[in-house]
Amino acid sequence: MLGYFGPRGTFTHQALLSLGEGEATPFPTVAATLDAVRNQQVAAALVPIENSVEGGVSATLDRLAAGDRLMIIREVLLPVLFGLYARPGTALSQVRSVLTHPHAAAQCREWLAEHLPDARITEGGSTAAAAEEVAQPTSRFDAAVCAEVAGELHQLEQLADHIADNDGAVTRFVLVAPAGPPPDRSESDKTTLVAFMREDHPGALLEILEQFAGRGVNLSRIESRPTKTILGDYCFSIDAEGHIGDARMAEALMGLHRVCKDVIFLGSYPRADRVKPRIPYGGRDSDYTAARAWLDDVLS
Amino acid sequence: MLGYFGPRGTFTHQALLSLGEGEATPFPTVAATLDAVRNQQVAAALVPIENSVEGGVSATLDRLAAGDRLMIIREVLLPVLFGLYARPGTALSQVRSVLTHPHAAAQCREWLAEHLPDARITEGGSTAAAAEEVAQPTSRFDAAVCAEVAGELHQLEQLADHIADNDGAVTRFVLVAPAGPPPDRSESDKTTLVAFMREDHPGALLEILEQFAGRGVNLSRIESRPTKTILGDYCFSIDAEGHIGDARMAEALMGLHRVCKDVIFLGSYPRADRVKPRIPYGGRDSDYTAARAWLDDVLS
Amino acid sequence: MLGYFGPRGTFTHQALLSLGEGEATPFPTVAATLDAVRNQQVAAALVPIENSVEGGVSATLDRLAAGDRLMIIREVLLPVLFGLYARPGTALSQVRSVLTHPHAAAQCREWLAEHLPDARITEGGSTAAAAEEVAQPTSRFDAAVCAEVAGELHQLEQLADHIADNDGAVTRFVLVAPAGPPPDRSESDKTTLVAFMREDHPGALLEILEQFAGRGVNLSRIESRPTKTILGDYCFSIDAEGHIGDARMAEALMGLHRVCKDVIFLGSYPRADRVKPRIPYGGRDSDYTAARAWLDDVLS
Amino acid sequence: MLGYFGPRGTFTHQALLSLGEGEATPFPTVAATLDAVRNQQVAAALVPIENSVEGGVSATLDRLAAGDRLMIIREVLLPVLFGLYARPGTALSQVRSVLTHPHAAAQCREWLAEHLPDARITEGGSTAAAAEEVAQPTSRFDAAVCAEVAGELHQLEQLADHIADNDGAVTRFVLVAPAGPPPDRSESDKTTLVAFMREDHPGALLEILEQFAGRGVNLSRIESRPTKTILGDYCFSIDAEGHIGDARMAEALMGLHRVCKDVIFLGSYPRADRVKPRIPYGGRDSDYTAARAWLDDVLS
Repeated sequence: MLGYFGPRGTFTHQALLSLGEGEATPFPTVAATLDAVRNQQVAAALVPIENSVEGGVSATLDRLAAGDRLMIIREVLLPVLFGLYARPGTALSQVRSVLTHPHAAAQCREWLAEHLPDARITEGGSTAAAAEEVAQPTSRFDAAVCAEVAGELHQLEQLADHIADNDGAVTRFVLVAPAGPPPDRSESDKTTLVAFMREDHPGALLEILEQFAGRGVNLSRIESRPTKTILGDYCFSIDAEGHIGDARMAEALMGLHRVCKDVIFLGSYPRADRVKPRIPYGGRDSDYTAARAWLDDVLS
Repeated sequence: MLGYFGPRGTFTHQALLSLGEGEATPFPTVAATLDAVRNQQVAAALVPIENSVEGGVSATLDRLAAGDRLMIIREVLLPVLFGLYARPGTALSQVRSVLTHPHAAAQCREWLAEHLPDARITEGGSTAAAAEEVAQPTSRFDAAVCAEVAGELHQLEQLADHIADNDGAVTRFVLVAPAGPPPDRSESDKTTLVAFMREDHPGALLEILEQFAGRGVNLSRIESRPTKTILGDYCFSIDAEGHIGDARMAEALMGLHRVCKDVIFLGSYPRADRVKPRIPYGGRDSDYTAARAWLDDVLS
Repeated sequence: MLGYFGPRGTFTHQALLSLGEGEATPFPTVAATLDAVRNQQVAAALVPIENSVEGGVSATLDRLAAGDRLMIIREVLLPVLFGLYARPGTALSQVRSVLTHPHAAAQCREWLAEHLPDARITEGGSTAAAAEEVAQPTSRFDAAVCAEVAGELHQLEQLADHIADNDGAVTRFVLVAPAGPPPDRSESDKTTLVAFMREDHPGALLEILEQFAGRGVNLSRIESRPTKTILGDYCFSIDAEGHIGDARMAEALMGLHRVCKDVIFLGSYPRADRVKPRIPYGGRDSDYTAARAWLDDVLS
Repeated sequence: MLGYFGPRGTFTHQALLSLGEGEATPFPTVAATLDAVRNQQVAAALVPIENSVEGGVSATLDRLAAGDRLMIIREVLLPVLFGLYARPGTALSQVRSVLTHPHAAAQCREWLAEHLPDARITEGGSTAAAAEEVAQPTSRFDAAVCAEVAGELHQLEQLADHIADNDGAVTRFVLVAPAGPPPDRSESDKTTLVAFMREDHPGALLEILEQFAGRGVNLSRIESRPTKTILGDYCFSIDAEGHIGDARMAEALMGLHRVCKDVIFLGSYPRADRVKPRIPYGGRDSDYTAARAWLDDVLS
């Protein structure tokens, strides 16, 4: 059984369904979702980790790093597509009041201003809850801005889709399991980790980046997060291109381990976009094997 | 007249009072506060920018960078000290119900569990609103967890102070004015800026860091923020040690301008902690002047 | 009047003739040649600076750096082509004894072994002197291995040419004048300099290289030379791609001046091979001008 | 039996005697000396490798790198002390003619000008040969400038010592053996190697230096040498602080092997000056072991 950050009808739910693993258990917070994995209540769980508009999802980044070690085993990319949904029989011209979440309202502001200039927009707790509310025959709201999954779940009718002002917004979700051996290498993998700087060490971030750059490993995401102790003390949440089973990645991680206060490995898993890494000169596994063989030869 | 991110009774209000500039106008959101500066409704405004527990304040970082150029002219550091406040006459042993904000509840969990094991803790919209509610004679809540300024504002009595589990939490606030010439150099300044990476350029962050490191300028904060366009496209919010009037900082900023898509200068201002920067070999203004004189001599 | 490192009949002489400036004065040593420029005995002088087989010419590198400042204004590349020259009327089959310089003997060893297996090879002071000796009717040597210019000078007959085992050897010569404004920029220039490390500073060479790399300036030659004081104290003789009039080169040189004990600028001049530099992102003069304009705008 | 670059009476001979290994066989050139090791004619041989005035000894650097692999097992530092030696019975005031080698003449120019202003100085093939010549009762030379060992060898009398103008000149010699396991680690070792750049790769030297810098390994000598193929194609002769048995050195060497065309290991051996390396954060063997254990744990 899988878990996910709920409730039902959210984008996370929609991403969960795209996994094709059947239904799953929603949890009310990211913390509760990840705890359910740590407690073995579920085998794995899906949580959002990064959004092209809002940035890294702090709750996920912080909760992945703290507590018993977890491991990302898969990622899902989902376009953030908002639609306008109403009870069956409602026409667009009849919509006078709309319920949605503040983020959704902000992201669809222009469309709403153009197509429903006179409607009152009310902001509530979540887009899924908005759909649920609108589905009540007695609701004082005519329509909800929500994900398609929420519209379908509550048997609403789609009055319009793709109504976000920036149509390219994407959210990235990760499927998180208890720590264990990572999935096998594919031709296109990503590795996620958290590196904790030694305190009070100005060049620390440069040193961290050089562990990767010096071995030709590209980073696709880096975010600073406070360590929750003193102001200006950071850790870095990093996605790097490649698999821990690649020699250059393994060496970069060991290099990080040596220069950092701590490193938390959060998994190597196939990239959803299947982009293959560019392997630098001297960066193939065979180059590492040859260098080791040369050293052994020199020492004997 | 100054503005600040309100309402009255918050830590931002308390930081505002520490400026000794008299009363000021609260605004309901960070966006509204900064807009009031841009609209010249207030001469300058105080907003939180960084918290040792929660990290950078996204709303502030994002709103400083977007829109007409603003400038930080001063910073304030404030310990995040929570106290327990009640209507006059209430003893600690009489407290059965406590109202506060979820962050405050989380940060004082252990103290509450130990000293008020039987009290019901209710989470509301803000610690300042909690104090206001508790101040009502008919309130169903006995006490509020809030800042001292809120307790005093609503004429509550302090039952306990320093009740946060992590007593070292600090929030950093900045006083923001319209763009203009920066304050004069002191012996201990900080420069804040946002650097936008060129898209799709793997070594970009390393290149950004090297502009500072190569000129001996230390960074005291660096945070990635999404540019709100495509997933994985970041800008970096940076605090660097020194003043734009220092030759090495000016050169680093011009170097950044050359290798980045864009750079937004957000001010050079005195550090609240008065720590002086370590000046590297060749990093004094006189070294820059001497190098220029040498070049001119060689070219003549 | 020009000078050159003689005597007549050497490769330096041949390179001098390729300048098309008419005859010139030979000097017996590199030191004497450069002193003649410093003493204004000649307007400029040609000396060898680098050889693809032997490396940098130490005497030239050291004498350029010490003493009154000089400036390279032009470079010449010359293939090192050896031929076998004899008195007119001598056939190859009649050659029993060959005179040449040890370097020339070494570089033509295979050809001599194959074509003159029974000849006695004698090593003397220079290939030019060998040609002069062979030109004497009473000489006990039948042929000389020397440059074409020496064969012609002494009216010898060429028995074979291109007899060096490695046919691609090239020597680079530089025309040196008193210090003054460098030649105008062409589209393809080179800048020569010497950088003196601060003593006892382990990362110094890395720091020197980063001044160039950080501004996208490539190096085409770097050689360490002892400073003649203590063991392990080095300076670096460097050729960089570009002209001191290029903004990125000017900045790199000023950066060097700041981090080094001393920098000696030895000239910016057109490359003999006319290869144009690759200009990095942000490396054009206009990028430097734009960065300066931006800084001025921010400060006003 | 050991060998050395002779003849008897040179500084190399003097350095050889300081090893306390008894007499040894002199060879006429550095090439012949190293060939004698390769041919097992001698068990090991002493050659000069670096001089604080003249720089790296090119013949040694080039001959160590080419041919069957050799290994440096020990180093010797020797002050270059010249003295004035004459046949017994000659007083300083009687010296009218002096024989020596051009380098020695150059290095003692000021002393000779002051103390023997009227003497004729003749430059010959070596200081040892000069001493031998002066020892002949019929010699037309009154004194030789040479090393003490040469004066003693030819039973000359010392008229003056320490007569070099720069009294701090030092020459470094290395004892070279056939390739094999390196000597055990001491607390203060040096590692010598040659790194061949990939052709036509501008940042190659920076990449080479970063392999060391990134692992906290300092370099005590780096010299560029042409690869004898095309102009501008270099290899680098390097001394690094530490032993190939140190984890950080082993990793740096393997890193070099991956990014270079070729690497020739020339030995790890105790430093003559017994200076201990500064070990950087994360640079101890135990840090490498811990990083490996962490990786193994993460992968299991």
